[in-house]
Amino acid sequence: MKTQDPYDNEKTRRKIEAMVEAEERYLAALRRERLESEATPLRITGRRTFLAAAAAAAGIGGLPRIAGAAAPPGAVERPVPADPTKVQGTPTNDDGGYGSRSQFESEARWRFGTPTKESSWTMTPLEHGMGIITPSGLHFERHHGGITTIDPSRHTLLVHGMVEQAKKYSMADIHRFPSISRTMFIECSGNGLTEWSKPTLKTVQGTHGLTSTSEWTGVPLALLLRESGIKPGAKWVLAEGADAAVMTRSIPLDKCLDDAFIAYGQNGEAIRPEQGYPIRLMLPGWEGNTHIKWLRRLEVSDVPYQTREETSKYTDLMANGIARQFTFVMEAKSVITFPSGEMKLPGPGFYEVTGIAWSGRGKITRLEVSADGGKTWADAHLQGPVLPICHTRFRFPWLWDGKPAVLQSRATDETGYVQPMLKQLTDVRGLNGPIGSIYHLNAVQSWAVAADGSVTNVHA
Amino acid sequence: MKTQDPYDNEKTRRKIEAMVEAEERYLAALRRERLESEATPLRITGRRTFLAAAAAAAGIGGLPRIAGAAAPPGAVERPVPADPTKVQGTPTNDDGGYGSRSQFESEARWRFGTPTKESSWTMTPLEHGMGIITPSGLHFERHHGGITTIDPSRHTLLVHGMVEQAKKYSMADIHRFPSISRTMFIECSGNGLTEWSKPTLKTVQGTHGLTSTSEWTGVPLALLLRESGIKPGAKWVLAEGADAAVMTRSIPLDKCLDDAFIAYGQNGEAIRPEQGYPIRLMLPGWEGNTHIKWLRRLEVSDVPYQTREETSKYTDLMANGIARQFTFVMEAKSVITFPSGEMKLPGPGFYEVTGIAWSGRGKITRLEVSADGGKTWADAHLQGPVLPICHTRFRFPWLWDGKPAVLQSRATDETGYVQPMLKQLTDVRGLNGPIGSIYHLNAVQSWAVAADGSVTNVHA
Repeated sequence: MKTQDPYDNEKTRRKIEAMVEAEERYLAALRRERLESEATPLRITGRRTFLAAAAAAAGIGGLPRIAGAAAPPGAVERPVPADPTKVQGTPTNDDGGYGSRSQFESEARWRFGTPTKESSWTMTPLEHGMGIITPSGLHFERHHGGITTIDPSRHTLLVHGMVEQAKKYSMADIHRFPSISRTMFIECSGNGLTEWSKPTLKTVQGTHGLTSTSEWTGVPLALLLRESGIKPGAKWVLAEGADAAVMTRSIPLDKCLDDAFIAYGQNGEAIRPEQGYPIRLMLPGWEGNTHIKWLRRLEVSDVPYQTREETSKYTDLMANGIARQFTFVMEAKSVITFPSGEMKLPGPGFYEVTGIAWSGRGKITRLEVSADGGKTWADAHLQGPVLPICHTRFRFPWLWDGKPAVLQSRATDETGYVQPMLKQLTDVRGLNGPIGSIYHLNAVQSWAVAADGSVTNVHA
Repeated sequence: MKTQDPYDNEKTRRKIEAMVEAEERYLAALRRERLESEATPLRITGRRTFLAAAAAAAGIGGLPRIAGAAAPPGAVERPVPADPTKVQGTPTNDDGGYGSRSQFESEARWRFGTPTKESSWTMTPLEHGMGIITPSGLHFERHHGGITTIDPSRHTLLVHGMVEQAKKYSMADIHRFPSISRTMFIECSGNGLTEWSKPTLKTVQGTHGLTSTSEWTGVPLALLLRESGIKPGAKWVLAEGADAAVMTRSIPLDKCLDDAFIAYGQNGEAIRPEQGYPIRLMLPGWEGNTHIKWLRRLEVSDVPYQTREETSKYTDLMANGIARQFTFVMEAKSVITFPSGEMKLPGPGFYEVTGIAWSGRGKITRLEVSADGGKTWADAHLQGPVLPICHTRFRFPWLWDGKPAVLQSRATDETGYVQPMLKQLTDVRGLNGPIGSIYHLNAVQSWAVAADGSVTNVHA
């Protein structure tokens, strides 16, 4: 299926011209408004602009911010001159040679409910995302025994079981193998678990923040398994982490010999501690829980191990009372990140609707946007490069007439699979859990835009 | 020109099989050696492994590291349990919701010579690079008046000069425009300036560390210029930064209307302070100095402004005494990052030679590697996705016989341009500066591997 680029045909070109004109009128009005009331913070709360508004509220008049005030996590507080051209800037390496973000940026990972130290997660602030890379400091987390701290010089990976020769690798050994890099998403299969029966969390960080994309680097798992020699009859591999939960999952051997790899790099540097430092199992397109962090052992077998995390957890109870097991692949999904829940549009006019789409089965080939709750759909632009099993940024020019609207996005992947509406999904899967189902919610998300511009999470 | 993938034909497949066998023998020997002397740090110093060796030296026996010891910049020090499966891990968000790197990772930006606060730079540690993304905290820096701190709620961008209507934009205005993202390199035209006459700096961080790649997000400059309306006869745009140097460069209008954009995002979050927060002019493929940071003003004109940074600096004095001016494009270039200067190979055997190639004119189409100082060349594998005007990772399987060798890489881009040997370049450009020339050194880099495995920077 070929994606129609809305920026590239005569009809939509005319439409865009009209939008640009409307945008110009809007910007002119905006400027007049600002001139009339210079000190009033802008009412635009879309995307990053409400951060700017927050910063405006903090920085009174033309005075510098108070030196020594606490900077947000990951930032260094520096004095803010009234005229930066009249004051010498900060020297390089005042940060020790590893830079930090601006003190005016405060977005953070977040979790709902009461965190426990034994079992916890945090979500990526997708509403502020740009492009496809998730900053490593904002990659979602899901831990079953806390963040494990491992000295890489003492870490080993054991490969044993149904192999010709058991082998143990140091990190130095692992770094000697040929490497690959791959920009791909990891999504927790519990992403959206609060949203089955009714719209629950208010922001896209809450409804969809358990997915993130990094450029991962490591060693193809097939190379390591070949070093040991697989015995006839082997069909599964148990992967085990070195965390306090000793997280274990059974992985079909075919996947291990296909595109699985052992990552030691993330976004150009060592993998972050909370992502499994020094090594993590990567299974492109499969549910996040199978990407075993702090990987220490791979045991080859002829049967799955039926561990807790693949029996009582990470299985899907169906309407007929039978549970689906080993539902590894994350199916096609998408979400609009701007505008999204808790934002407020300042008024009618041009908006660039944007969001991300992804599929565990390959490339996204089409993304449709509806502004009328699914009655009509139009193709959005997919921003290149469109990579397989990777967040894909989409953009759609929208001229809001100021009336109530319901925004939705619907992804299609290269297998022809179309992201389902919520009712289509629950008709098949049922709502058998305490909150409906739990795992693998990939239905279309709806955001209602009210006449006053406020955006809320709805089921439509 | 089609790239031959060395991993994908019968002859090289046999060669790889032989390499893998050699590798297996080597790894077996390595394991025996380790068993014989468990406490001896590995002699492998390639890639990240010497960091591991350093960590091994710090962590004595099985004892945890001393709590409270200083962590490297960008890291949080946490206790290291002897057996991490027996101790509860660290809770999420002990970092405030913005993660940090492992305490065992200490790579940093670096500069040679005595830094001054007025004019300074730092270099990316390319020898530890993985994939194509540079971590934002390790992106090279070049400042002419220090790092400027700007409150985005008070920052504006003025567009004026030969336009129908001068306009001033707030950050909120800029965020309202349609956006684009582009993963691309920025290279300082002074990258390698120490290397014209003789090999000077010892590591690839020193010889090539003034280039980095990020995914940048922002607004096409053409949209902003269209808002103001360009007057007939306009040919240049002066771009001005809000730093203490009030950095200014003249940019041809054609480039501004082509692929130029104004970036507010870097690797999925706000652009870092040292990269021009809150906005930076992006001119894909052009010398870094033209990507004006802390951008505050664009003045449209019919002539260039002949600023200091395009007359006495950032021009190239040729052999005939005449200086080239406005040499914007960064031509095709490449460098092997492993093995590279100051590393030591532990002995003969299999190595995956890897590095990066890039061109300001488009995609890299071919990368050749020589292990005999340029007598023979063989095609390396270009790791996908190969993006235009972007670092491209290459990999080459190399079976080192233990004899002295000289490793080189040579890039070809989609225009057919082939990266020159050093002599080819100096024959044309001359060596007229105090250290030869200064800007635009893009010659082939040579690393000599001695019989003892030590790697040094040479001219060959």
